[in-house]
Amino acid sequence: MSHEFPTRAENYSQWYQDLVIKADLAENSAVRGCMVIKPYGYAIWEKMQAVLDQMFKDTGHVNAYFPLFIPKSFFSKEASHVEGFAKECAVVTHYRLKNAEDGSGVVVDPEARLEEELIVRPTSETIIWNTYRGWIQSYRDLPILVNQWANVVRWEMRTRLFLRTAEFLWQEGHTAHATAEEAIIETEKMLDVYAEFAEQYLALPVIKGVKTPNERFAGALETYCIEAMMQDGKALQAGTSHFLGQNFAKAFEVKFTNKEGKQDYVWATSWGVSTRLMGALIMAHSDDDGLVLPPKLAPVQVVIVPIYKTDEQLKAISAVADQLAAEFKAKGIRVKYDDRDTHKPGWKFNEYEFKGVPVRIAIGPRDLENGTAEVARRDTKEKSSMQITDLTLKVEHLLEQIQDNLYRKALTQQEERTYRVDSWEEFETKLDAGGFLYAHWDGTPETEQAIKDKTKATIRCIPLNNKTEEGKCILTGKPSKQRVLFARAY
Amino acid sequence: MSHEFPTRAENYSQWYQDLVIKADLAENSAVRGCMVIKPYGYAIWEKMQAVLDQMFKDTGHVNAYFPLFIPKSFFSKEASHVEGFAKECAVVTHYRLKNAEDGSGVVVDPEARLEEELIVRPTSETIIWNTYRGWIQSYRDLPILVNQWANVVRWEMRTRLFLRTAEFLWQEGHTAHATAEEAIIETEKMLDVYAEFAEQYLALPVIKGVKTPNERFAGALETYCIEAMMQDGKALQAGTSHFLGQNFAKAFEVKFTNKEGKQDYVWATSWGVSTRLMGALIMAHSDDDGLVLPPKLAPVQVVIVPIYKTDEQLKAISAVADQLAAEFKAKGIRVKYDDRDTHKPGWKFNEYEFKGVPVRIAIGPRDLENGTAEVARRDTKEKSSMQITDLTLKVEHLLEQIQDNLYRKALTQQEERTYRVDSWEEFETKLDAGGFLYAHWDGTPETEQAIKDKTKATIRCIPLNNKTEEGKCILTGKPSKQRVLFARAY
Repeated sequence: MSHEFPTRAENYSQWYQDLVIKADLAENSAVRGCMVIKPYGYAIWEKMQAVLDQMFKDTGHVNAYFPLFIPKSFFSKEASHVEGFAKECAVVTHYRLKNAEDGSGVVVDPEARLEEELIVRPTSETIIWNTYRGWIQSYRDLPILVNQWANVVRWEMRTRLFLRTAEFLWQEGHTAHATAEEAIIETEKMLDVYAEFAEQYLALPVIKGVKTPNERFAGALETYCIEAMMQDGKALQAGTSHFLGQNFAKAFEVKFTNKEGKQDYVWATSWGVSTRLMGALIMAHSDDDGLVLPPKLAPVQVVIVPIYKTDEQLKAISAVADQLAAEFKAKGIRVKYDDRDTHKPGWKFNEYEFKGVPVRIAIGPRDLENGTAEVARRDTKEKSSMQITDLTLKVEHLLEQIQDNLYRKALTQQEERTYRVDSWEEFETKLDAGGFLYAHWDGTPETEQAIKDKTKATIRCIPLNNKTEEGKCILTGKPSKQRVLFARAY
Repeated sequence: MSHEFPTRAENYSQWYQDLVIKADLAENSAVRGCMVIKPYGYAIWEKMQAVLDQMFKDTGHVNAYFPLFIPKSFFSKEASHVEGFAKECAVVTHYRLKNAEDGSGVVVDPEARLEEELIVRPTSETIIWNTYRGWIQSYRDLPILVNQWANVVRWEMRTRLFLRTAEFLWQEGHTAHATAEEAIIETEKMLDVYAEFAEQYLALPVIKGVKTPNERFAGALETYCIEAMMQDGKALQAGTSHFLGQNFAKAFEVKFTNKEGKQDYVWATSWGVSTRLMGALIMAHSDDDGLVLPPKLAPVQVVIVPIYKTDEQLKAISAVADQLAAEFKAKGIRVKYDDRDTHKPGWKFNEYEFKGVPVRIAIGPRDLENGTAEVARRDTKEKSSMQITDLTLKVEHLLEQIQDNLYRKALTQQEERTYRVDSWEEFETKLDAGGFLYAHWDGTPETEQAIKDKTKATIRCIPLNNKTEEGKCILTGKPSKQRVLFARAY
């Protein structure tokens, strides 16, 4: 496949779209808005899943599975939830097809109409809290710390691979607690898990904060989020954790007997990340030559390519390469030895660079004589000759360095493009150039909306532990007590 | 929760249903036919997934993800597929809800009708082969060895937890090959993977065979299957692997250029197992006291219960138990130390027995004095006193013994209830008592159907490497060349 595609500077949006497709990560399907996640993309998602799943288990959570379908009436039970969610959904109305009488194929059987329509879950609070009613009687049944890995559907009109698709994969945690305090601790704990995952694995520095009421999850009392900066200076919400209060417990009549013997409604949280993180990963680190993957999530961390002319040379190189590969594997390093004779080394170099393999090792006959190998790192493109005898240790260290370098590079860019702005003119200019803007806001939803209408910028979050500071709203000039984080966002 | 439920002898079907619910494996949901898989049940499914996923990867497969929805017209493209599948499906006709004008909740927005209805996948051959058309040009693009973990929906009218539900979880492998031979080898290889998984992990002996044309997967040229015997002597199909020929390639125009430079249609296989295996696992080994789980799939393999009266005793026991637990974990054994003071030892014994934990260790003050512990195995209920010093090694060995014992027990029952029958009278008698019957069949679909109508027995399979043998059909007396396997089935 041709790797011709625009540079980031030419057209960032097209660069992303082309990269996702040409690097075999995902593609659009025959169903509008639904994507196919191809094996190379899915392998990265599997790595993310494995790490997150372990982090959830280490914090006491267990997995379960709830139905794909939700009865329509469930959505009406939590008033603000229905406003935020029930609108753009896939609706199942029938349960049978039949042969068309004219033999042209199949048609929906009008006699197989459901009494109550079913909604393909856009999120599972309603069906889960309806289930929890049967699980919870006493404080002894609490907390419930459940996570679900699932597909969900939101009928988005404008879709973009990984970032916004009608169907996507995600995990959704749904926990139930005896007290508000405990639920808030859980909400914040899971935000920390997401932030740690983003920084340690995605190599992506994030800002932790809470959403304004306007931007809260439908049904939440507080929505916590992590916000990351992409290379064009735009923000991407990389995870959310919601304190739901007793809203869903009240909607679905989930009560428990507390230690004092009194009945009370249960307190709830929910939290999720999705295949959107794939978009974040790609947009944050990749360059004009293709993908750049953090070693911890790269399906292949090290590729070994033999350079040879004769079969004898290949045989000698393979002996060394096989030995090396075995050593890498013993250290838990994901290595591939590509000795295919159908492609030239130059083609392979190009291919693995494009696919974002963090470390490439080339071994030729002269290397063998010298006991060396040529080691190239994907992030900086630096090459160096290394002794084969201590290659395993050095490459292990190099992978850590690359992971660290990607994080520091992203952090530097985030810091360099984060501004404190105090005038509307500067606000607009800096926004057009791309970046995170800390600015004063008068605290009203009307001003928030007016700023969005004028500039397409939204309040990404009110950062946690935000400093109070006297100031004037960037738009209205009214008094403000703190700066909030503005940006245009994906 | 009360553990009162019928014995297997009293009511096998109710015994199963109650066990699934009371052991916290799964329950029915608010959506007809859809189940909730509870954390304990899901933990077992996760173990199955992990093992199968590794077996698929070890045989060269990669995972990917395809859309949940399939355009209705896709089902009409493969003639026999539409006959077998397109009928009982969940059909999405609309993509939006709106507030009811009378304020009563939400209604389907009639203006948001889809041009073409979407079917929630009952299986993914059609959408995947439509996708493969874009992936395959030349023999160099083959084979494609892809697996998908997904949820699927088949609108079953009579459902039973795990065994038959409207939505279920499964994996579906979909491979593409350059030759029929290669595709057949793949089909058989995956059948072997399933059989190995059933025998090594589920502790379930299986009969490998091929289905009769009547029982083939819709669109397959040959359906291979593994059939297991449950404790009531009925059969359960535990996995299928299909050789699809060029049917789907022709339906979706998937051609490739072969090594000779000629265009040909691609050869296909598909293979799958589902959460149905949970039903097989439960029905095969459990007893009138609750679940019996093979150690390899048990979420908790060993539980340690302290027996004490004073805090001092508990402290002394806990010191030993914590040390033991650490040793078990170091050996990869899943251990739980249950020192809750909210429940008595007797309650805990009962609970873990009911939940099928393979090994229970009880430690009391007198044990401490003697340096011993009481070890009870779930399968045989045998108890013995063991020296704590070599407990880890002994328990490790015991877990292997239990795994092995469950398999041998199931094999013995299968052998004892497998009969060669030559008269119709015996056929009916043996069938009513429950069992696998090897009988002659004249090879016609009409006779197969007549036997099914008379007895509810189906031909489970024609065993692989079946011996040829002259005989007379059990029903019609017409000549037959081989015996086939009859049974009533789940």
